Amino acid sequence: MGMTQTEKILAKHAGMESVRPGQLIRCKIDLALANDITAPPAIIEFEKIGRPVFDKAKIALVPDHFTPNKDIKSAQMAKNMKEFARKHDIIHYFEVGRMGIEHVLLPEVGLVAPGELIIGADSHTCTYGALGAFATGVGSTDLGAAMATGDTWFKVPESIQVILKNKPRHWVSGKDVILYLIGKIGVEGARYQALEFCGEGVAALSMADRFTIANMAIEAGGKNGIFPVDETALAYLAGRVSRPYQVITADADAVYASTIEIDLAELEPVVALPHLPENVRPARELGEIAIDQVVIGSCTNGRLEDLAQAAAILQSRSVHPAVRAIIIPGSQDVYLTAMKLGYIETFIQAGAVVSTPTCGPCLGGYMGILAAGERAVSTTNRNFRGRMGHVDSEVYLAGPAVAAASAITGHISVPEEVMA
Amino acid sequence: MGMTQTEKILAKHAGMESVRPGQLIRCKIDLALANDITAPPAIIEFEKIGRPVFDKAKIALVPDHFTPNKDIKSAQMAKNMKEFARKHDIIHYFEVGRMGIEHVLLPEVGLVAPGELIIGADSHTCTYGALGAFATGVGSTDLGAAMATGDTWFKVPESIQVILKNKPRHWVSGKDVILYLIGKIGVEGARYQALEFCGEGVAALSMADRFTIANMAIEAGGKNGIFPVDETALAYLAGRVSRPYQVITADADAVYASTIEIDLAELEPVVALPHLPENVRPARELGEIAIDQVVIGSCTNGRLEDLAQAAAILQSRSVHPAVRAIIIPGSQDVYLTAMKLGYIETFIQAGAVVSTPTCGPCLGGYMGILAAGERAVSTTNRNFRGRMGHVDSEVYLAGPAVAAASAITGHISVPEEVMA
Repeated sequence: MGMTQTEKILAKHAGMESVRPGQLIRCKIDLALANDITAPPAIIEFEKIGRPVFDKAKIALVPDHFTPNKDIKSAQMAKNMKEFARKHDIIHYFEVGRMGIEHVLLPEVGLVAPGELIIGADSHTCTYGALGAFATGVGSTDLGAAMATGDTWFKVPESIQVILKNKPRHWVSGKDVILYLIGKIGVEGARYQALEFCGEGVAALSMADRFTIANMAIEAGGKNGIFPVDETALAYLAGRVSRPYQVITADADAVYASTIEIDLAELEPVVALPHLPENVRPARELGEIAIDQVVIGSCTNGRLEDLAQAAAILQSRSVHPAVRAIIIPGSQDVYLTAMKLGYIETFIQAGAVVSTPTCGPCLGGYMGILAAGERAVSTTNRNFRGRMGHVDSEVYLAGPAVAAASAITGHISVPEEVMA
Repeated sequence: MGMTQTEKILAKHAGMESVRPGQLIRCKIDLALANDITAPPAIIEFEKIGRPVFDKAKIALVPDHFTPNKDIKSAQMAKNMKEFARKHDIIHYFEVGRMGIEHVLLPEVGLVAPGELIIGADSHTCTYGALGAFATGVGSTDLGAAMATGDTWFKVPESIQVILKNKPRHWVSGKDVILYLIGKIGVEGARYQALEFCGEGVAALSMADRFTIANMAIEAGGKNGIFPVDETALAYLAGRVSRPYQVITADADAVYASTIEIDLAELEPVVALPHLPENVRPARELGEIAIDQVVIGSCTNGRLEDLAQAAAILQSRSVHPAVRAIIIPGSQDVYLTAMKLGYIETFIQAGAVVSTPTCGPCLGGYMGILAAGERAVSTTNRNFRGRMGHVDSEVYLAGPAVAAASAITGHISVPEEVMA
C-alpha cells in the first residue's frame, strides 16, 4: 500500500521503509526555527538539557514579531535570542534590518528545500509545504529539545487530498483558494491532518499563491500543507538552494482520509468575517461595511506578488480619508524589489504607510492596533476576537486585491469597484 | 529702548506697542498643535469650556507619536483625536499615512510663517522658530483652553543673543551647533529665555540645520529659539505659504540678557553622552564605545538633508553585524523624495530598517526600544535615563553623520573613520 507525500517524507526522516497514520515516530529534522517571541522559552528548555546545539547551521533565529523592539519586554526577548545566537555561533541568525518575516524569509534565502523536514516554534511554519517540504509548528519546549537533539517525535497524520482544477480568474489569488477551502471544511476540518494539494490546477498558482495556501493549512487545523514540486517550484529553488535535495511525490496508490475537489475557475474574491477564518463569504455580497484600517502584508501575504496586486489597484488612486492603510513588505528583499518596481512609491503617493518587515499588527503586536469599535480588512491569517487589538474590534481577512480596493473606497470592496 | 525678535512678535500678538521681559501678556495664537498623546487630555479641557473651536483652520492635529497604533491604549487615543477632528471639522487633521512627525510636517505643508505665534502641546514646538516664528510648547490644559479661546497667556521671556560666525566644516551639522551650545550653557542655561540666533554664520546653515537648532532650544531650557528670516528661509517658504506674513526683525537697540558667540568653523562632530544633552564631547575623543542600535530620524533630524548625510556615508557600505540601524524619514514627503534620490535603497542595501514616519523610539514609544545594557547612538533630542527603553540602557545623541558612521563600525565613530 502506497504512501502520501507527507508519509514518505516522515518515513525517510525516521529512517523507516514506511509509516502509517497514527504511528508515533522519531524524525531527524533539517531545520529548527524560532523567533523573538518563541526562542526565549525554547532557550530555557534547551539549556536544561545541557548539550551544545545539534547543528549550528540547522537552526534559524528570526527577530520579526515585535521587532524593531516595540517595548522593553520585547527588547529583552530579542536580546536573549541574539545572545544565544552569538554564544552558539548560530549561522542563520538574522539581525533586524537584514531579515524578513520568518516564513517569507526562509524560503527566500534557500533554507527550505523539497523533501526536508522543518519544525518551527510558530504555527505558520506549515508555509514551507509550498516547496514540497514537511513543515509544521511546534511548541517552544519541543523546539528547545530539538535544538539539542536534532530530532523530534511525531504522530503520523492522515492526509486529505485537495485536487485543484482549472485556473483562477483575475484578482483571485491563493488567499481566496485557502479561505474558500477553510470556509468549506471549517477551522477544524483538517485537524491533525495533512492537506496535500495536487491536480493540474497547481500549475496555475504562483509560488506566492502556494505559500499563502500552505501557510493557512493550520487555520483548518491541519498538521501541515504540502504541494507537489513542479517547474514553478524548481524555478523558485534555482539559485536559492545549492545543497542536494530529493523531490518526494505521493505514491499512486497512496491512501487519503478524504478527497476534496476545488475548481479554481469558479472561485471569486472572498472575505472571512469576524471572528473565525471559516466565516467565508464572497466579497461582492457583503454590502457597505465601513472600515478604519487596511493591512497588507504578513507571512501570509507579504510577498512581491501580493504587493504587485495591491500596487496595481492603488496606482494613481488615493487611500480613503478615513482609512489607515498599512503595507508591510515581508522581507528586505521584497521591500527592495517592490521599490525598484515602483510599488513603494505608489503606496506612499496613495497615502499608505509602508512599514519595515514585521509581523506587527497581525497578532496585535504593534504597527496598527485597533481601538474598540474599529474594523480592519487584513491580508493576515487570523481574525479571532481581539487578535489585532481591542476585543471589540473586528478583522476581515482577505487577499491583497480586496484589501487594496477597500482601502480606496473605505468599505469592503471587490477590485472591480475601483478598477472600472 | 528696542525689542528683540521674540518681544516684537509677542507684542504684536498681544496688540501692544511694546513688551518687556517678565511682563504677563495675553496673545492671540496663529496655530494650536496637538498630537495623539497630548490631544486627548487637551480635548477633555476643551470640552469643559463648552465652546466651539476658535478656528477650525488654526488647529493642527497630528498622530505621530505612537502611530501606526502601537497598542490598544494608543489606538484609543488616536481614535479620540480623530473623532474630535471630525466632530469639529478640523481642516489640518493628518491621518496616518498622509502625515509626518509634527515638527517636520507643519513647516513642510506651509502651516508655519515668519512672525506667527504657534503653540503646541509638545515640547519641541520651538522648532518653528527656524522660520522666524515665535513657537513654544505648552501643556495640554493650556492647549485645550486655547483651542476654545484662540489666545493664551505668556510671561515675556528675556532673550539670549547667539551670534554665529563663519561656516561649519564638512560633516558638521546643525545638531553639532546646538549640542555644542547646550554643552556650553547647560540644560538650564537658557531657562525660560529666548535663544535668538543671528550673525553672518546663519547664512551658512540650511533650513534643516536651523530646524534642528531651534528644535533643541528647549534642551537648554529655552522658552523658544528663533532665527532671522533670510533668503534661505524665504526660498523655503515660497510655494508653501501663500497667506500674507510679516518678517519681524530684532531692533538694533534690542536688549539681551546675554550674548554668546559661536565660531562655526571651529566646531567638530560632537556627541552628548548619557544621560543629559549637556554632556557634550567631541566624537573623535570617545574611544571605542560599542553600540547595539542607531536611530536616524525624529523631529530633530528626520529631514531630507539628514537622510542625505546618512546615505552618503552608508552608500555601498554595510551596517555592522551587531547593530540595528533604524532610519525614520520625518514625513511621507521626505520618504518619497529620499526614495527618488536613492537614499532608501542605499539604507536597505546597507541592512538598515526604514520605518514609516513616527516619533517611535525617541521617547521610548516603539520601533527600537532598548533592553537593559544596550547602547544607542541616536539623532533624537533627549538622552535622559530610560528615555529609549530600559533604565539601564544608554543613549548617545549625535548628528546623522556620526550616527551613520557608527552604524557601520559598531562603535561611536566620526565620519572620517569610514569615509577614508
